[in-house]
Amino acid sequence: MTTSADGHGTSEPYDTDLMAASTDLAAALREIIELSTTTEAGTDAIRAAAELVRRAAGELDGPRRPLTQMPRLDDPQARRRTFNPVAGVASGIAPPLDFRRSNGVVTAEAALGAPYEGPPTFLHGGMSALFLDQVLGDTAAINGVWGMTARLELDYRGPVPLGRLLVFRGWLQETQGRKSVIAGSIALAETPDRPLVEARGIFVMPRPEKMASYFGSVTDSSGEHRMPGNAGDATAVPEK
Amino acid sequence: MTTSADGHGTSEPYDTDLMAASTDLAAALREIIELSTTTEAGTDAIRAAAELVRRAAGELDGPRRPLTQMPRLDDPQARRRTFNPVAGVASGIAPPLDFRRSNGVVTAEAALGAPYEGPPTFLHGGMSALFLDQVLGDTAAINGVWGMTARLELDYRGPVPLGRLLVFRGWLQETQGRKSVIAGSIALAETPDRPLVEARGIFVMPRPEKMASYFGSVTDSSGEHRMPGNAGDATAVPEK
Repeated sequence: MTTSADGHGTSEPYDTDLMAASTDLAAALREIIELSTTTEAGTDAIRAAAELVRRAAGELDGPRRPLTQMPRLDDPQARRRTFNPVAGVASGIAPPLDFRRSNGVVTAEAALGAPYEGPPTFLHGGMSALFLDQVLGDTAAINGVWGMTARLELDYRGPVPLGRLLVFRGWLQETQGRKSVIAGSIALAETPDRPLVEARGIFVMPRPEKMASYFGSVTDSSGEHRMPGNAGDATAVPEK
Repeated sequence: MTTSADGHGTSEPYDTDLMAASTDLAAALREIIELSTTTEAGTDAIRAAAELVRRAAGELDGPRRPLTQMPRLDDPQARRRTFNPVAGVASGIAPPLDFRRSNGVVTAEAALGAPYEGPPTFLHGGMSALFLDQVLGDTAAINGVWGMTARLELDYRGPVPLGRLLVFRGWLQETQGRKSVIAGSIALAETPDRPLVEARGIFVMPRPEKMASYFGSVTDSSGEHRMPGNAGDATAVPEK
């Protein structure tokens, strides 16, 4: 079964059964990663779990796409990146953050658990940077100025607690040709205007010759050449 | 069985069988995360994998430590953080980076795969930030100036390719009381002096009253109060 995707019209159809199964596998992976981090289970139970995970991996063994070939479920033009490590619904690493956009501003809300810990009971400072890079990059894209991170600055005003609902925000500050400056923040959802981490990022769309050298070998799953790029309204970040 | 750990003498003993099982589970989780990202397997195989992962999670279900209680295998004073999302040997999210130190400089080498992807075939810009925050923080600690990230600046000179051996480096720039400035980089291992990403971080050791407010409720697995802090020579980052 295929569908015209996320309702934005311009993105490619994909196999919804495969998407559902891949999304479910990622949910199961997040659950066991959380459990493996907090369980009080004994050594034998952990060994049994590892054996079952290896059997599960065996189910997926066989042909693998090369890195230059996009996943079957992806649509780079529409920024549908199923395995993105921050927002990808099929990534076992991603929380995943569920981005929404409204009037050029990108937001996501999430509570994060023990696997993302830095100092005891707080979010890893680098995780704040990872998530904000994605927030800022998506903000650039939905404002029509897709680019790659050229500079990222983060100011940590206070520790970000795990297990509390957080709000991530990104907004466009300025744009000039291929370059955009984006700001963003992480705050407790209950005090969204008191940022715990503030970010500023400069994103630059590479010149055509750089684009060709970076992405010239990238294909979609049918082997057709595809470039990432300015998604404009076709971005996979849905409206609120 | 218990041991005096990693040969640094000052860290607490831990259960080596539990450590081996937890390390093995994380390796299995990394393997399936990589496979889930690149497999060409069909929907039924992915469903079967998800079912086995849920059975594995069931093995770990039961009593869980609260967030305020450190994992059984950790020693915060020695910075042995088993589940750290960058360097933790028992973290399914971490690559993990294997940090070494020599003359105050921290290095790690790793090749990263599809789960850490941002733009097609390249490392996610936020992943560079995540890893460098950890490199810089460990560099502060092994130089005796443990602190929490106060500011992080990253300059992206060129995209970081997946599947190539990378070198991560951190070194102390200056220190003043509770504050230190640390620099770091990511480069291809074959051209270590041509940085693809450069970082500068300011790390600050919170004042005693802040430390008490941030970590006052943190205990080790026996329920004894423990504070993270300046590890000095007791750090778990081994010498080269």
